Amino acid sequence: MNYAYLGPAGTFTESALLQVPGAADAQRIPASNVNVALSMVREGAADAAMVPIENSVEGGVSATLDAIAQGESLQIVSEILVPITFVLAVRPGIDSLEQIKQISTHGHAWAQCRLWAEANIPGAAFTPASSTAAGALALEEADPPHDAAICSPLVAQERGLKVLVSGVEDNVGAVTRFILVTRPGRIPQPTGVDKSTLILPLPEDRPGALMELLEQFTARGVNLSRIESRPTGKSLGEYFFSVDIEGHVAEERVAAALSGLHRLSPKLRFLGSYPAAQGLEASVDTHNSDAAFSEARAWVQSLRDRV
Amino acid sequence: MNYAYLGPAGTFTESALLQVPGAADAQRIPASNVNVALSMVREGAADAAMVPIENSVEGGVSATLDAIAQGESLQIVSEILVPITFVLAVRPGIDSLEQIKQISTHGHAWAQCRLWAEANIPGAAFTPASSTAAGALALEEADPPHDAAICSPLVAQERGLKVLVSGVEDNVGAVTRFILVTRPGRIPQPTGVDKSTLILPLPEDRPGALMELLEQFTARGVNLSRIESRPTGKSLGEYFFSVDIEGHVAEERVAAALSGLHRLSPKLRFLGSYPAAQGLEASVDTHNSDAAFSEARAWVQSLRDRV
Amino acid sequence: MNYAYLGPAGTFTESALLQVPGAADAQRIPASNVNVALSMVREGAADAAMVPIENSVEGGVSATLDAIAQGESLQIVSEILVPITFVLAVRPGIDSLEQIKQISTHGHAWAQCRLWAEANIPGAAFTPASSTAAGALALEEADPPHDAAICSPLVAQERGLKVLVSGVEDNVGAVTRFILVTRPGRIPQPTGVDKSTLILPLPEDRPGALMELLEQFTARGVNLSRIESRPTGKSLGEYFFSVDIEGHVAEERVAAALSGLHRLSPKLRFLGSYPAAQGLEASVDTHNSDAAFSEARAWVQSLRDRV
Amino acid sequence: MNYAYLGPAGTFTESALLQVPGAADAQRIPASNVNVALSMVREGAADAAMVPIENSVEGGVSATLDAIAQGESLQIVSEILVPITFVLAVRPGIDSLEQIKQISTHGHAWAQCRLWAEANIPGAAFTPASSTAAGALALEEADPPHDAAICSPLVAQERGLKVLVSGVEDNVGAVTRFILVTRPGRIPQPTGVDKSTLILPLPEDRPGALMELLEQFTARGVNLSRIESRPTGKSLGEYFFSVDIEGHVAEERVAAALSGLHRLSPKLRFLGSYPAAQGLEASVDTHNSDAAFSEARAWVQSLRDRV
Repeated sequence: MNYAYLGPAGTFTESALLQVPGAADAQRIPASNVNVALSMVREGAADAAMVPIENSVEGGVSATLDAIAQGESLQIVSEILVPITFVLAVRPGIDSLEQIKQISTHGHAWAQCRLWAEANIPGAAFTPASSTAAGALALEEADPPHDAAICSPLVAQERGLKVLVSGVEDNVGAVTRFILVTRPGRIPQPTGVDKSTLILPLPEDRPGALMELLEQFTARGVNLSRIESRPTGKSLGEYFFSVDIEGHVAEERVAAALSGLHRLSPKLRFLGSYPAAQGLEASVDTHNSDAAFSEARAWVQSLRDRV
Repeated sequence: MNYAYLGPAGTFTESALLQVPGAADAQRIPASNVNVALSMVREGAADAAMVPIENSVEGGVSATLDAIAQGESLQIVSEILVPITFVLAVRPGIDSLEQIKQISTHGHAWAQCRLWAEANIPGAAFTPASSTAAGALALEEADPPHDAAICSPLVAQERGLKVLVSGVEDNVGAVTRFILVTRPGRIPQPTGVDKSTLILPLPEDRPGALMELLEQFTARGVNLSRIESRPTGKSLGEYFFSVDIEGHVAEERVAAALSGLHRLSPKLRFLGSYPAAQGLEASVDTHNSDAAFSEARAWVQSLRDRV
Repeated sequence: MNYAYLGPAGTFTESALLQVPGAADAQRIPASNVNVALSMVREGAADAAMVPIENSVEGGVSATLDAIAQGESLQIVSEILVPITFVLAVRPGIDSLEQIKQISTHGHAWAQCRLWAEANIPGAAFTPASSTAAGALALEEADPPHDAAICSPLVAQERGLKVLVSGVEDNVGAVTRFILVTRPGRIPQPTGVDKSTLILPLPEDRPGALMELLEQFTARGVNLSRIESRPTGKSLGEYFFSVDIEGHVAEERVAAALSGLHRLSPKLRFLGSYPAAQGLEASVDTHNSDAAFSEARAWVQSLRDRV
Repeated sequence: MNYAYLGPAGTFTESALLQVPGAADAQRIPASNVNVALSMVREGAADAAMVPIENSVEGGVSATLDAIAQGESLQIVSEILVPITFVLAVRPGIDSLEQIKQISTHGHAWAQCRLWAEANIPGAAFTPASSTAAGALALEEADPPHDAAICSPLVAQERGLKVLVSGVEDNVGAVTRFILVTRPGRIPQPTGVDKSTLILPLPEDRPGALMELLEQFTARGVNLSRIESRPTGKSLGEYFFSVDIEGHVAEERVAAALSGLHRLSPKLRFLGSYPAAQGLEASVDTHNSDAAFSEARAWVQSLRDRV
């Protein structure tokens, strides 16, 4: 197995990938953006790709949401949660916050540390970096373009960077969810605490279309754990929805909901059923149990056999 | 074939039965009440029974609704509509309305002619009869117990009774719907304009339980053409519903609705799919078509095959 | 105050009326049918009328349901529950069940004792009476037209009739609900455990019309305690619904549901809010409380004041 | 009047602001980010702020969605649509695409031109800029840090930059929607084609909570024109929704929907009713018309007056 991931090395995405059994010893290929990582999988250059899909503060990762919604089909086979905490690394010679005139990091990291920065280094000018790791690595240059960088503890540790402050993030406890994506293939067996991911184009722009879709879940007691709206890119007000539900396609109530969704929105995509990184076994009402579905189907079949 | 029907001879029920192909030449057995007629079918004494189920003015026929909802299963194989019109038959010697002091008929018929009676024979005392035919036949006795009877044109004609006034019903255009009931067996093939009849016990007494049942129909675009609430007989406020829907169990959207209902109310009864006596072919939305259901099922199956 | 009621004297309806405070000493006027009783109220000949509306075994009383749904508006001001138990009264000279050849009672009473009769007096011929009391009183005639009558304990006791068997009803524990009806006027104050009665014409014959009406209740957590379908009398398949809900029009969630219903079915009738004869105080979700409605209204008004 | 806007000068946001009547001659204050622009309004340093809220390709602008959802209340008073088209500006000395080794622009603009860049300047290294204007202005420096910048036609024209290619955006026809935000005050009169914007926290994490909110709209025939999910920032899976609806709070159906939403989610925010930049007058069903609401309210009030 070889793995693509949203690089460069040392990002939170690599941290996520390292949690996959076997990945520490496998080939890991950093990609410059999510599209590149997913293309490597689609084209066979990688067996799987680890990409971020959602941050508890910043929300959905648009690039990922859009990339897996279009193009050749892909499949999510697992998810990894990584707590997000940032350190302030500085170039040699910087010993106090007052000395920091120039700071760099990725725009998303900057957004997550802005309040800290406004309070603690109000005079520092911000320059965006293409990744948190890139901003950090530049501190090692002979003539660093900035005095400090906000980056992951991993990269600071690996490169032996000087850390002036740890935990500079505004939202303590932030978490990013990463997904491991492969070409479509075998779906992992249900574990009892599973998730399924769907792409649901709104069938047409009429009042209640979204409700009709959601009704397919509630009618079978299927919980949503994530819902993101994304523009189709065609015109303002045209959306598709990226949805995570609790449950596995091997469960009858999930299969029934998918069947209903397919009727209403035949271009939907099923992106996989996989073990949930956290969560409890869903409590399923008797009338939504596998047994209830099987019995109902058998009963109706017995009627239809009489025609 | 031999047929039981709600007697005595000459009632509207026999009129309905005579419309069944072959019934005019078959054995026809009048039963004293609906329960008796249906018991004859259940026990094999009759092959089928014709009973009234609904009148456009009086509403559902409780005896029938309750009798087919309980006990051994039965099946409705066809329905017959009979226009309801009444005549005022009188005993020999009566020539004008003023002479009528005593009048008799079945309570239901009386209810349907009450306004006429109040306006035209306000002084006449009413005695209930066990059927419209029984009230009419009594006029032939040596010393008739009443002066007039309200009955069907059929019985008046067959017995040569003197008819003083025709069309004494208050609601011109009233219609009664009759059903032909057999033991469960082969279900008639779909014709394109069919009906199915269901008995739906309310699953439990919680807000919205009825709505959850009805939602099974609306979610698949299945129309209700009749809904009757009936007490379960256990306590006030406990109901079951007797429902006719447009469509045949061989149609996917009907099968899907039945399956959903079975999950919510597993003691429901399916009483048959049969040709509708009137009505247009249902206009079915694309997403509720047989094709949409088949495609959705095949798609979900293709996913489940990958687990 | 004077009271009309569905007569004759000695029926269960009079038992119900006697439970109304003051009615025992007031003028009580028996009416020959429900329409007559209600007309007396509409025309001012009576201040109020007691009529049956529902039996736990037989279901809704069609005559009442239809009479209060049409014509000049009326108002329900209270409800009374009466347990229904029947006795077998016999004419002088009858000492055993075997001697009974002819039996009479009202058709509804007969329906409620039919199994007992089939098991205990299988050979007896049934003649319908216009009321249970009428069938019983005939036993006092010089030459009674029948040997036995099924009637209320009250009438047997009042007339000193010979009772051969008590409790001949098939369904032990049956209850009939009676309503006290006046011309529209002051609505009783809410007690905390109240009921409201509505007549809901189905707005049009389209799929989901009934669901849209019911949704007005569920959206506000308003429970239905009774729902009866009745034909409009115009053609098969046209219904109105007679509905009891838990709650009082003075409560915000009930008022909001009524307002929503009026928009969908402007010809609906409100027949009154009145204390429930039994039941617990409704448990109301916070978001359906009077406070939640008041605050929401005040908030929206504060916005509209800014336009 | 003075206006803050998401700067620097020459961005699409300034283009939007210039469409506001009077803004061309008013003081226009560029802000370094959306939060700063909105804070200026909240603190009185600006009377209004123009900020982007939604792009037809990239989706909702998270910074804006989050900033108006929290903190002191603000109000949207108008919206402006700006077509998004980009040009490739180059530093002096660059005459062909092959010469471009370094390119810079804002990350969002880069995302919108990525396919063009991959196809036409595959070898160019990308450096993120803090805005499209900043990347363009750097081309004027003595020693430009990059060879080319992707920017708006406006800034290229104003600064006399050399444009090598126009229309480098991947999605021709992309549009960004901007909103003009003030402190809460007078709400613009309805025009017949209006929009209202809401922030809806999901009341609690239970199945169907989102459906319950949406049901408030569909029950009154209120269309959604935009729905965006945003994380609350507390934990994964906690969302609020940012929603635009068709209609004005002065319209009864909108007021009723808001009232229902307030009951379910009392912390919702109303961010204003304002003229829609495009769209047709909503077709309103009779039962959702202002008249239907007024009549229903008057009817219920007439009942409550009788208590």
